[in-house]
Amino acid sequence: MKLELICTGEEVLAGQIVDTNAAWFANTMMEQGIECQRKTTVGDRLSDLVEIFKERSLVADIILVNGGLGPTSDDLSSEAAAEALGEPLVENSQWRQRLEDWFTRNGRVMSPSNLKQALLPESAVMIDNPVGTACGFAVKLNRAWLFFTPGVPFEFKAMVKDQFIPFINERFDAGEVTQVTKLLTLGSGESALADKLQALTLPSGITLGYRSFMPYIEIKLFARGEAAIEQIEDTVQLLEAALGTAVVCRDCDSLAKAVHNQLVNSGLGLSVAESCTGGAITSGLVAFPGSSTYLHQGLVTYSNESKVKVLGVKPETLDDQGAVSIAVVEQMASGARNILGSDFALATSGIAGPEGGSDAKPVGTVAIALATKSAVYSQMLKFPSRSRDLVRSMSTAVAYDMLRRELAQQAVIVDYPSAKRFAK
Amino acid sequence: MKLELICTGEEVLAGQIVDTNAAWFANTMMEQGIECQRKTTVGDRLSDLVEIFKERSLVADIILVNGGLGPTSDDLSSEAAAEALGEPLVENSQWRQRLEDWFTRNGRVMSPSNLKQALLPESAVMIDNPVGTACGFAVKLNRAWLFFTPGVPFEFKAMVKDQFIPFINERFDAGEVTQVTKLLTLGSGESALADKLQALTLPSGITLGYRSFMPYIEIKLFARGEAAIEQIEDTVQLLEAALGTAVVCRDCDSLAKAVHNQLVNSGLGLSVAESCTGGAITSGLVAFPGSSTYLHQGLVTYSNESKVKVLGVKPETLDDQGAVSIAVVEQMASGARNILGSDFALATSGIAGPEGGSDAKPVGTVAIALATKSAVYSQMLKFPSRSRDLVRSMSTAVAYDMLRRELAQQAVIVDYPSAKRFAK
Repeated sequence: MKLELICTGEEVLAGQIVDTNAAWFANTMMEQGIECQRKTTVGDRLSDLVEIFKERSLVADIILVNGGLGPTSDDLSSEAAAEALGEPLVENSQWRQRLEDWFTRNGRVMSPSNLKQALLPESAVMIDNPVGTACGFAVKLNRAWLFFTPGVPFEFKAMVKDQFIPFINERFDAGEVTQVTKLLTLGSGESALADKLQALTLPSGITLGYRSFMPYIEIKLFARGEAAIEQIEDTVQLLEAALGTAVVCRDCDSLAKAVHNQLVNSGLGLSVAESCTGGAITSGLVAFPGSSTYLHQGLVTYSNESKVKVLGVKPETLDDQGAVSIAVVEQMASGARNILGSDFALATSGIAGPEGGSDAKPVGTVAIALATKSAVYSQMLKFPSRSRDLVRSMSTAVAYDMLRRELAQQAVIVDYPSAKRFAK
Repeated sequence: MKLELICTGEEVLAGQIVDTNAAWFANTMMEQGIECQRKTTVGDRLSDLVEIFKERSLVADIILVNGGLGPTSDDLSSEAAAEALGEPLVENSQWRQRLEDWFTRNGRVMSPSNLKQALLPESAVMIDNPVGTACGFAVKLNRAWLFFTPGVPFEFKAMVKDQFIPFINERFDAGEVTQVTKLLTLGSGESALADKLQALTLPSGITLGYRSFMPYIEIKLFARGEAAIEQIEDTVQLLEAALGTAVVCRDCDSLAKAVHNQLVNSGLGLSVAESCTGGAITSGLVAFPGSSTYLHQGLVTYSNESKVKVLGVKPETLDDQGAVSIAVVEQMASGARNILGSDFALATSGIAGPEGGSDAKPVGTVAIALATKSAVYSQMLKFPSRSRDLVRSMSTAVAYDMLRRELAQQAVIVDYPSAKRFAK
């Protein structure tokens, strides 16, 4: 079975919403053992849409089309499908009724442009959308089924899970059993990781992929077939032995999520005091429901006055050592922990750039501390100073990793090859 | 001239890095008056790459290929180009020397896999990359030039600006003069905006596009040709009159950036006290260099104890009114402002969900306040509670908008059609 994806709309060429759909879709299909072999994105021109539907329907068995089902004049998927099929558009009375009910139930007036969303090609099979105003539909063109889905991510995801996957399972043989295991790494570059892993001999049926989302690199281990799946645990151990402390978690969506889960399970409380990371440590945890059970406060003490008044940092330490120093960041962590007697406090202070560096403390220098009830751990690192975002995201990642290691009862401070450590 | 984009790599089908490249590329070309007519993404299989290069080179005049120039074994763009051309790969001695110099200069040891990055198809024109280890290259296949670029975003952007655009300007006629103007809107849905704008008569040569990145919808006004460009100002006024307070800024990358610029120019200082937004207001401002000139502190007082101890919220107000209330959020704003005598303070307190709602204050209820030296403005809104992220991002947007309006000397509190306001 040959599966392809077509994303439509000028806003896709220029935006990002559907791109997350595409990534999510490829991953979801991969977990079903089905590879998406090509993704094509075209704009809003009717002729471009008709052309791509005709062209790809000669090659693929099933094509998921995303987007272009909205109420506005640049939403043309339904019209293009009708033209490719040589059919008229026909109002689907069932969906028109659903639209009218939906607006009534939500106490809103249906805008005239929403009516367009009930027009489908004559031969189309309507696909229900319980969570939005755009129904999906499927049509057979040449050798392919074209399956049309809305662009809004949560509507799209619901339709793929609840309707697209059953649709293909009914019509096509299931793919080979596939399992994906992910190792998240921090602090080593892609080529350094690849050099270490290329030296290993992997079992047949297991392949590796890399996905870089700075400052992390995720290593994906694809196992295809029952025999390969049985080898996953041994292979993960082989990889972990080769990579050492670079691996920060397994099958976690992010390091923030891993730390969140540890904190929820521990029942312990956290305060955060941030300077250069500007709230990113706190914000990354608050993203998860349940963070209120452990997160006491996150204090972004950006000015020196705030460090003194809110956290109790000593003015003379700021004068003597500067805000970016081991001494100040340790006082920030202790101060943040003491306000509410939290079990842990993380603190950061650094120079994210592009201005503010000196010879002794260049842009990219960041001091990071973890205060616990019995100790304060700290380190000052020099990160690659390519961008302000990168310095902030690496600082955030190292802070999370220190807490993760403490919670896992491992050494709190380890080496990150891509960062240089200052002597204490 | 027919321009297409090909993105390569399994990590693209499953990741997001190159997707931002694609959006940036389409925008950058559009500003040159050139539309990118199709974007295709394929995986890492050599045969898929060879096939797509052959296929699209029969149709397009120029194809930008992004990714697959890295040092790892799944980086196959160069090999695939050579196979499509029926040529061998040849080591480019100039680039090999550059690689060796680059690693020496950065005090790093060149890993063996980096050597692969100097292998190019025999007929390739090498394209310099002053900021990375992957050189680009261009080859002529069938009717098309294929121009290969690295996937790392800042390397890619530098190469497009400094080398790709001059490359096409030398070889092809420039497109029609095009200008893009953007209006960022907040608080109205896409269909509501579209209904208002479809009623307007636009000058010939001006078209509208929509790009939704929740909670914002950006309206793009494309003007093609000199005559249309002269009509831009009048058209923007027409749109602004139709959309009223929904328009929050023009040609700004984001509302956070607009507020950042206002604050830098004003010379005034800001403190932030956040609960449900969890640091997103602060973090969104810290993202910009220069934020340290106005941002005093951002206090994420997530627990009630922290609201009392850090901000001086009265325990009896928390008991009587609850943490999510006009009274508490006003005390949070005033308290945050008073610590350092800041000119402004923003505060939020709400129920982001999915748990924690009640009949009186359901999930999505958020209280937001702005304290100035002379007044405290506050409102309690009910946002659509579809997701925790959406509630947080809408709350953050409204807080920014309140401060933006205050700094622009406009009424601080206005209606947002997609949110319901609680009576005070």
